[in-house]
Amino acid sequence: MVQEVSTMKKLVAFGALSLTAFGLMAVPSLAQDTTTAAEAAEAVVEAAAPAYALASETAYIFNTLLFLLGGFLVMWMAAGFAMLEAGLVRSKNVSMQCLKNIALYSIAGLMFWITGYNLMYTGVDGGFIGSFGPYSFDPVGLEGADTAALLDTGYSTASDWFFQMVFVATAASIVSGTLAERIKLWPFLLFTVVLTGFIYPIAGSWQWGAGWLSEMGFSDFAGSTLVHSVGGWAALAGALILGARRGKYGPNGQVTPLPGSSMPLATLGTFILWLGWFGFNGASQLAMGTIGDVSDVSRIFANTNMAAAAGVIVAMILTQILYKKVDVTMALNGALAGLVSITAEPLAPSVLQAVFIGGVGGAIVVFAVPMLDKLKIDDVVGAIPVHLIAGMWGTLIVPLSNGETSYATQIIGIVSYGVFTLVCSAIVWMVLKAVVGIRVSPEEEALGLDKVEVGVEAYPEFGQGSQRL
Amino acid sequence: MVQEVSTMKKLVAFGALSLTAFGLMAVPSLAQDTTTAAEAAEAVVEAAAPAYALASETAYIFNTLLFLLGGFLVMWMAAGFAMLEAGLVRSKNVSMQCLKNIALYSIAGLMFWITGYNLMYTGVDGGFIGSFGPYSFDPVGLEGADTAALLDTGYSTASDWFFQMVFVATAASIVSGTLAERIKLWPFLLFTVVLTGFIYPIAGSWQWGAGWLSEMGFSDFAGSTLVHSVGGWAALAGALILGARRGKYGPNGQVTPLPGSSMPLATLGTFILWLGWFGFNGASQLAMGTIGDVSDVSRIFANTNMAAAAGVIVAMILTQILYKKVDVTMALNGALAGLVSITAEPLAPSVLQAVFIGGVGGAIVVFAVPMLDKLKIDDVVGAIPVHLIAGMWGTLIVPLSNGETSYATQIIGIVSYGVFTLVCSAIVWMVLKAVVGIRVSPEEEALGLDKVEVGVEAYPEFGQGSQRL
Amino acid sequence: MVQEVSTMKKLVAFGALSLTAFGLMAVPSLAQDTTTAAEAAEAVVEAAAPAYALASETAYIFNTLLFLLGGFLVMWMAAGFAMLEAGLVRSKNVSMQCLKNIALYSIAGLMFWITGYNLMYTGVDGGFIGSFGPYSFDPVGLEGADTAALLDTGYSTASDWFFQMVFVATAASIVSGTLAERIKLWPFLLFTVVLTGFIYPIAGSWQWGAGWLSEMGFSDFAGSTLVHSVGGWAALAGALILGARRGKYGPNGQVTPLPGSSMPLATLGTFILWLGWFGFNGASQLAMGTIGDVSDVSRIFANTNMAAAAGVIVAMILTQILYKKVDVTMALNGALAGLVSITAEPLAPSVLQAVFIGGVGGAIVVFAVPMLDKLKIDDVVGAIPVHLIAGMWGTLIVPLSNGETSYATQIIGIVSYGVFTLVCSAIVWMVLKAVVGIRVSPEEEALGLDKVEVGVEAYPEFGQGSQRL
Repeated sequence: MVQEVSTMKKLVAFGALSLTAFGLMAVPSLAQDTTTAAEAAEAVVEAAAPAYALASETAYIFNTLLFLLGGFLVMWMAAGFAMLEAGLVRSKNVSMQCLKNIALYSIAGLMFWITGYNLMYTGVDGGFIGSFGPYSFDPVGLEGADTAALLDTGYSTASDWFFQMVFVATAASIVSGTLAERIKLWPFLLFTVVLTGFIYPIAGSWQWGAGWLSEMGFSDFAGSTLVHSVGGWAALAGALILGARRGKYGPNGQVTPLPGSSMPLATLGTFILWLGWFGFNGASQLAMGTIGDVSDVSRIFANTNMAAAAGVIVAMILTQILYKKVDVTMALNGALAGLVSITAEPLAPSVLQAVFIGGVGGAIVVFAVPMLDKLKIDDVVGAIPVHLIAGMWGTLIVPLSNGETSYATQIIGIVSYGVFTLVCSAIVWMVLKAVVGIRVSPEEEALGLDKVEVGVEAYPEFGQGSQRL
Repeated sequence: MVQEVSTMKKLVAFGALSLTAFGLMAVPSLAQDTTTAAEAAEAVVEAAAPAYALASETAYIFNTLLFLLGGFLVMWMAAGFAMLEAGLVRSKNVSMQCLKNIALYSIAGLMFWITGYNLMYTGVDGGFIGSFGPYSFDPVGLEGADTAALLDTGYSTASDWFFQMVFVATAASIVSGTLAERIKLWPFLLFTVVLTGFIYPIAGSWQWGAGWLSEMGFSDFAGSTLVHSVGGWAALAGALILGARRGKYGPNGQVTPLPGSSMPLATLGTFILWLGWFGFNGASQLAMGTIGDVSDVSRIFANTNMAAAAGVIVAMILTQILYKKVDVTMALNGALAGLVSITAEPLAPSVLQAVFIGGVGGAIVVFAVPMLDKLKIDDVVGAIPVHLIAGMWGTLIVPLSNGETSYATQIIGIVSYGVFTLVCSAIVWMVLKAVVGIRVSPEEEALGLDKVEVGVEAYPEFGQGSQRL
Repeated sequence: MVQEVSTMKKLVAFGALSLTAFGLMAVPSLAQDTTTAAEAAEAVVEAAAPAYALASETAYIFNTLLFLLGGFLVMWMAAGFAMLEAGLVRSKNVSMQCLKNIALYSIAGLMFWITGYNLMYTGVDGGFIGSFGPYSFDPVGLEGADTAALLDTGYSTASDWFFQMVFVATAASIVSGTLAERIKLWPFLLFTVVLTGFIYPIAGSWQWGAGWLSEMGFSDFAGSTLVHSVGGWAALAGALILGARRGKYGPNGQVTPLPGSSMPLATLGTFILWLGWFGFNGASQLAMGTIGDVSDVSRIFANTNMAAAAGVIVAMILTQILYKKVDVTMALNGALAGLVSITAEPLAPSVLQAVFIGGVGGAIVVFAVPMLDKLKIDDVVGAIPVHLIAGMWGTLIVPLSNGETSYATQIIGIVSYGVFTLVCSAIVWMVLKAVVGIRVSPEEEALGLDKVEVGVEAYPEFGQGSQRL
């Protein structure tokens, strides 16, 4: 028995030493002081708690960080659209595009707080719409009891809001480019209010808000349809109702190119968008707190890049063959179309599949741009081919690599988003047209929107802005 | 007793199995080999150590990463100021602004190493100044004993230095914009040496170095006053001593607009600054190693964005009402003023408060820009309204959302920084004016600084640079 | 004995409480229900597993995140090169530079998947070349058994591929700038295919693929030689074979400056590159999952910044002394040369050493640019001084701060890379010249490549593009 007692004491010492290890702090007197094992046990609990990182807390931090990283990268895409559009319009309308882009990004932020987030994500439950009301974030300085529920969620609500908010801004940017050079400022911004506060979030709730399409098995990983096609449908509705720019389409079917004012700005915009897309697709994994999640994010980065690269190369080869020259705007739009195409499913494809998906996107641009011109649909920056048509392609092809989806369901989703967005957008555009007018006068269009609506020329010293007219 | 002994052995086996679990490695022979529990305990310590991430080390990595992320985002703001200013000056002075911006960023880095960091952060202890001398980083490849003290600090010293260094560059950038188009290169750079190596760090030590204002309870989360107003006061001193550009103010009070050469570059600059501000404010949380901290960073991202968005919209609505057109430069500066306004307290406000704080910032720009013109203070890019006045507003309004601050103390801080910076800057400017001269000749100003001081035109083929004069 | 038994039971309770602590879940009935300690032990294993973050998994996530962060920052450098080159060529060739840059980035991505990565990293084993074949990533959604081997690797393979891929794009960008304004599009792209798919990866395998130079003790932390000099040698071979632009060098040795079209774009490009370099050098630490690694990354950030800053200031002071004006393009290239110089060893130097290394880089630019002109080597953007010569300098000076290297071995490495790349590149250029021709006709060169090869002018409204000729 003596020996037993001794072993007993050693085991208590064992516990004390473990304590020391766990807590990284000396608890030398524990072996002596602790009179009961229960007290020792409580000490273990206390000592161990701060010593090691809880997996749930670490994952929470990683996930939140992913949203913040992805969020600032996608926010940066707003600058990309601004530069792309500033480069692809004529110099007399460049200030206007700059203004519209910073304004729409601001409106998107405000509206996605006032109504958007809750319409899209709160209480959809398999239905068609969420709830009304502004969104609230977690309190400052979370501690103790506050955190249990959050650890279940797995990320900070504000980081999620931020990440989702920049997506709606992307959809609004698409509209801006298509309708450039003839739309009035404020009606465009009123449309943006409705798009970002109501149309996009309600449509988005069907899938990302766990609504009816999500229950049906529709799949759109990062928004080929939910973001890009929705923006594209809204742009198409606007283009049809607004009409083409004066001088673009002649009476005998001839198409007059109206070249953009700055290719380097358009190129810069494309590179910004390409960069931002790593956030757009990568952070749509929604988690990186496990090695599986962060490895998936990595696959998404690689696939996203390959699809864009393939889009560039295909567009270059096709324009070389068709036109004997490589049109740089086609190469840029090829990159964007490749990016949009891979967005519906950037994770599952093999590299080869990603190259194929993105390459087809590049081909879409080359063939769809002249097709739209034949239809006299004037899309200033090529946003409809890039975002709408390539978005449909990307969504349709998801089952190629993702075995849990079906072509039928994908088509249902594509059509549903198309009908809803086209109809809603057309109604808003027509109401705006009837009530306040959406198009500047022919004289104003000739002068350029910078002089008429902004009052600040983009390049007063060398552009063909209003000063020279 | 036999049973007891058996239980004893099982408990030893229990410990061995636990070891296996902790170390993720098989220690099968332990139960047999271990003759004493003490040895077993030591084995537990060794085995467990590498298996789980220590919370303190994980937090250290996250915190350091936050500084690096925030640091590169704020470094990017240097490009934002360069583009904003390049867009807002006339084409004959664009190369000069580019040169000044890359030079001041370089000087800021060198000076904040040579004197700045230690003046600001080392041994202030409630006083008015830190210590002199260049800064040293942690040794390469930290291991073992090195790390204990660092874990208390909670982040890498080099990451902290990097993050703080980019802040001083921001303050210097503000001066650059206000004084554009007439200041000589080298005197401006000499001022930058003094500002970044002495004025800014000494002033900064009062608050962020744990100096007297910090002890008094002054609050400036990310630098509405410490960075933006300090930069603004230095710019104001320079503008007063340097005088306005020739032709800006007529003898009868008329103000001649001298429009900037490129709105897309100004827009790009604004978007860059907006992006960088997520690092500026977000990483000023100084930690993201707990769920509370990373959630706070997320709140800061969201609030920062909302304040900027509100600044844009308010500036747009006000210019539409006042001038019947939306001035794009006002919208851009509205964004920046919203950002500066929220910088003193981006964490505590509710979203609605953030919108209010940023919106007032936007209004400040619209009213302060013409007010400065009435006072014949020639601020080329609007930096004084944006950084100085909105910075004062943001600092003043902190008690609205942060209950631990008082309006009285905030005012003491604002005034203290104003007096100190204005006086020191004015002295330096006057010394420079007396000794080397700070302003180019009228002929040189007419020719443009690019030809006179840089020798490289910004746009030799289409700008109104020196080639055409 | 009664007491002993009681202690026994308390110890079992102790175990149960520990379980509770580890698992963060109540296991209240364990003390009663568990009949054997072995079962209790198994319960401990199960309960503890999900509660704490494994250090190996946390490190894996941090390391992978570092590659993703570094990767997107270096990807962004592609935009930096595009803007730098667009700003430094004449407006009639700007679209071409934009196109070449987005095309070469796309090609680099495709080739580094098809052949590059495996040639560089797989099975080199002290030799001169890796293996052939496209690269595959980890499967989607890693779990359980998949992860053991990955935890040993320490990062996601796709993240590593992405990070290494953007490096090869950097090398290709260097060539693009030197050969601007007279090279044909498709031959340049064919050269890019060979460079990114074969020359760069084979050369890279010698060092980063654990090949013969690595075994010899050569050291090039982030690629002063492997990336920048390799790109520079390829550019030099091209420049020699392609010849200078028409009008650059007169018959009597006079050198005609052909000024770049946009200094703000060149400045923007430089800032982008500076920003991207934090990823380039910082993420070349290859790990940030320990406090030692993340602190090293921080040192690298700071040193990288200081070298660039010193490069700027030295170039400015030297041009002021030599030419009485500060050439902004020299300041920009000074920054880049400082960055290239510190790239071979950004970790070991003290701040003072970093300033010295980068400052010498800045001096190299100032003296090497006119030297190349004397040799009639027409390097449009100064890429050879910046990337090749400063890259050699940076590699040579590694032993100053890194005691584990020798000047002799560094020279062996520099020479080996020079001979291999120069010879291989020259062969490819000569084959291309013989088979398809690499240079446009004099008439086409006069018209500008935008009209001839791209068909889209960069600035149709104000550039001196083809419209005006």
